[in-house]
Amino acid sequence: MKKASIISVGNELLAGLIVNTNAGYLSRELLSMGIPTVSCYTVGDRIDSIAEAIAQAAQQADIILITGGLGPTGDDLTRQSLARFMGVQLEFNEELLAQMSEFFTKRDIKMSANNKVQAYIPVGAEAIANNVGTAPGIMTERDGKIFVCLPGVPAEMKQMFAESVADRFRQAAGGQVVLMRKIRCFGTGESVIAEKLGDLMQRDRNPLINCTVSGGIITLHIVATATDRAGAEEMIEKDARQLRALLGDLVYGRDEETLAEVVGAQLRSCRKRLSVAESCTGGLIGKLLTDVPGSSDYFTYGWVTYSNEAKIRELGVDGALIKKHGSVSAEVALAMAKGARARADTDFAIAVTGIAGPGGGTEEKPVGLIYIAVDSSELRDVQQYIFAHTREHIRYRAALMAINMLRLRL
Amino acid sequence: MKKASIISVGNELLAGLIVNTNAGYLSRELLSMGIPTVSCYTVGDRIDSIAEAIAQAAQQADIILITGGLGPTGDDLTRQSLARFMGVQLEFNEELLAQMSEFFTKRDIKMSANNKVQAYIPVGAEAIANNVGTAPGIMTERDGKIFVCLPGVPAEMKQMFAESVADRFRQAAGGQVVLMRKIRCFGTGESVIAEKLGDLMQRDRNPLINCTVSGGIITLHIVATATDRAGAEEMIEKDARQLRALLGDLVYGRDEETLAEVVGAQLRSCRKRLSVAESCTGGLIGKLLTDVPGSSDYFTYGWVTYSNEAKIRELGVDGALIKKHGSVSAEVALAMAKGARARADTDFAIAVTGIAGPGGGTEEKPVGLIYIAVDSSELRDVQQYIFAHTREHIRYRAALMAINMLRLRL
Repeated sequence: MKKASIISVGNELLAGLIVNTNAGYLSRELLSMGIPTVSCYTVGDRIDSIAEAIAQAAQQADIILITGGLGPTGDDLTRQSLARFMGVQLEFNEELLAQMSEFFTKRDIKMSANNKVQAYIPVGAEAIANNVGTAPGIMTERDGKIFVCLPGVPAEMKQMFAESVADRFRQAAGGQVVLMRKIRCFGTGESVIAEKLGDLMQRDRNPLINCTVSGGIITLHIVATATDRAGAEEMIEKDARQLRALLGDLVYGRDEETLAEVVGAQLRSCRKRLSVAESCTGGLIGKLLTDVPGSSDYFTYGWVTYSNEAKIRELGVDGALIKKHGSVSAEVALAMAKGARARADTDFAIAVTGIAGPGGGTEEKPVGLIYIAVDSSELRDVQQYIFAHTREHIRYRAALMAINMLRLRL
Repeated sequence: MKKASIISVGNELLAGLIVNTNAGYLSRELLSMGIPTVSCYTVGDRIDSIAEAIAQAAQQADIILITGGLGPTGDDLTRQSLARFMGVQLEFNEELLAQMSEFFTKRDIKMSANNKVQAYIPVGAEAIANNVGTAPGIMTERDGKIFVCLPGVPAEMKQMFAESVADRFRQAAGGQVVLMRKIRCFGTGESVIAEKLGDLMQRDRNPLINCTVSGGIITLHIVATATDRAGAEEMIEKDARQLRALLGDLVYGRDEETLAEVVGAQLRSCRKRLSVAESCTGGLIGKLLTDVPGSSDYFTYGWVTYSNEAKIRELGVDGALIKKHGSVSAEVALAMAKGARARADTDFAIAVTGIAGPGGGTEEKPVGLIYIAVDSSELRDVQQYIFAHTREHIRYRAALMAINMLRLRL
């Protein structure tokens, strides 16, 4: 099995000023071709450091991918470093310069003299075309190992990888097929999921099932390795069915689906419309729902009733009810949902009221206390939750939980 | 000058399943102590790989920081790897086991037998207490170099670093002080900023001025190195003043300040209240404003009028106006803001209407076309923008631009 090593070049990365998303992206792409990444390096803009990392990577892997350091300034030293490692000179490439000139001419920009250095590549290497920016990539081989340099700008790197590099790596991987599917879950913790799955999460199993958690969404990654695509697909289908059977309605979707997309598809398929009344989430539920293109088909009205006055005047919540139970109460959540549904004339309404913190909590009503109500002609339902951690975390969790509550009712 | 190298351990990192935020966090912390990071490694859960990375890091740096691989399972091999590199055995530490038992007892959880392995550390090393989780850290020295292992869970890593490691590193750095300040800008592109700054962005300057861009916010990092704190602070103050003079009201704040925080502080200081009427941003402006604790002091009402009907019924926009100009028009944006201000009885209102895409664009009104209106008793202002890229990008940029427009009017 071919193995990869990824080198990210840049002082900004080393200083932690920008987050390195390239290495993770390339790891995932390589893994999907059956090429595991065995090491990643981040090094600064120095020829010594870059060349040393290339040498180390070449000892561990068959495919060495280097991103960054291909720009036109004196800080961009990846070309020189690769040449030093290969023990060759840099060579001026007339054709590359012509391509770059064309890039600038098309955009009606004058090419800087600096850009000329980007037309140099190590002797014996081939250039990789960049249709999005000015920095060409470099590909070369030695002792059966492939060395590829791509720009650090993620959009350029991704496009060049897809257009000019991926096929070459697939060939190198020799036909082994690795497919991945994500199963998205919401509504419980990682440990509960792990317990339900039991032996399925063993590390030497094929398909491998990995679990990651982000923002309350638990993702199970099914990674199947087989000699052909049909075989891998079959293995994934089988596991996906088993996971759904074990986890029931904790599973809300697959791959990149969001809760808001799934709920939107449900609403669209049954031709129902939704309105939302938000207090502590401040517009976040509306934002998540309208992240989905075409959401205007089912989402028509939203209110951010951040003050009591707004709850009374806009949603018709009874002031006496707020006085009696407080604005953070099951009763007010229900009244907000009922009021929103009536005002907007929708089939469903969801409402959220709570204390997102950091201030405003009491012993009786602590920070993190959230009431979520769903109202329709057939049901009126309210749930109490206490979420922990930061204001951001509490608000995000409350918004997802509200959307999920509607999903389970639909 | 002391130099650092950071090693991140974990198969999940190598597979790109989780994003490595630890390395960047530690780089920034180290840099603020005057310790630049010269290399970062990511390696899998294998003793060979981890020990090899430690050996390489020790050749390049004086401080070697390792995160991850300290858990209780068979995959957690950082302890063994450090011991192998040091050429020593692991030793059972009775006191550590007692601390862990206490952690579980306090939480009324039974300690698993697996956890016992976490009480082993290399002979000669000292343990670092973990008050947030079960995995103790490890610190040891050899040939004047410091080796520190911390858990991979970011919350545990950060707390342990701050409580037990940072001071030791500051001592090792020998008093050189590096301070950083961020100057936050909004409203133009990176190239315009770079042009205005000119020579200030030279790489060998002290303070160094770095520029990063994320979500339309341009951040200038001023990094000053001096022999004492007062000297570094003075250098930063001088540069900060110069940047503000050069950039004017493109600068909205410093360090971690958001546009919503700055506008909130302006509103609070002049005791004004704000309402928001959103169409294409779908609640995002409300979400950003209410990310700020205490925003209920000035933000009282929000509407997500995602349908024309909602604009007419909730904000009193004239249906004939929508018919004549379309819902995405300067006239409707102004009417939405005016309606929101009247309904909510606030001093200011902002309104946004536009086409976020990917569908819905025409030749005359393309995807990305956004109208933003600000209404108050003294001014009525509307601006037209055309933003590019994805739905997410267009919505986010429109929301920030709306908040920024209010900032410039206040």
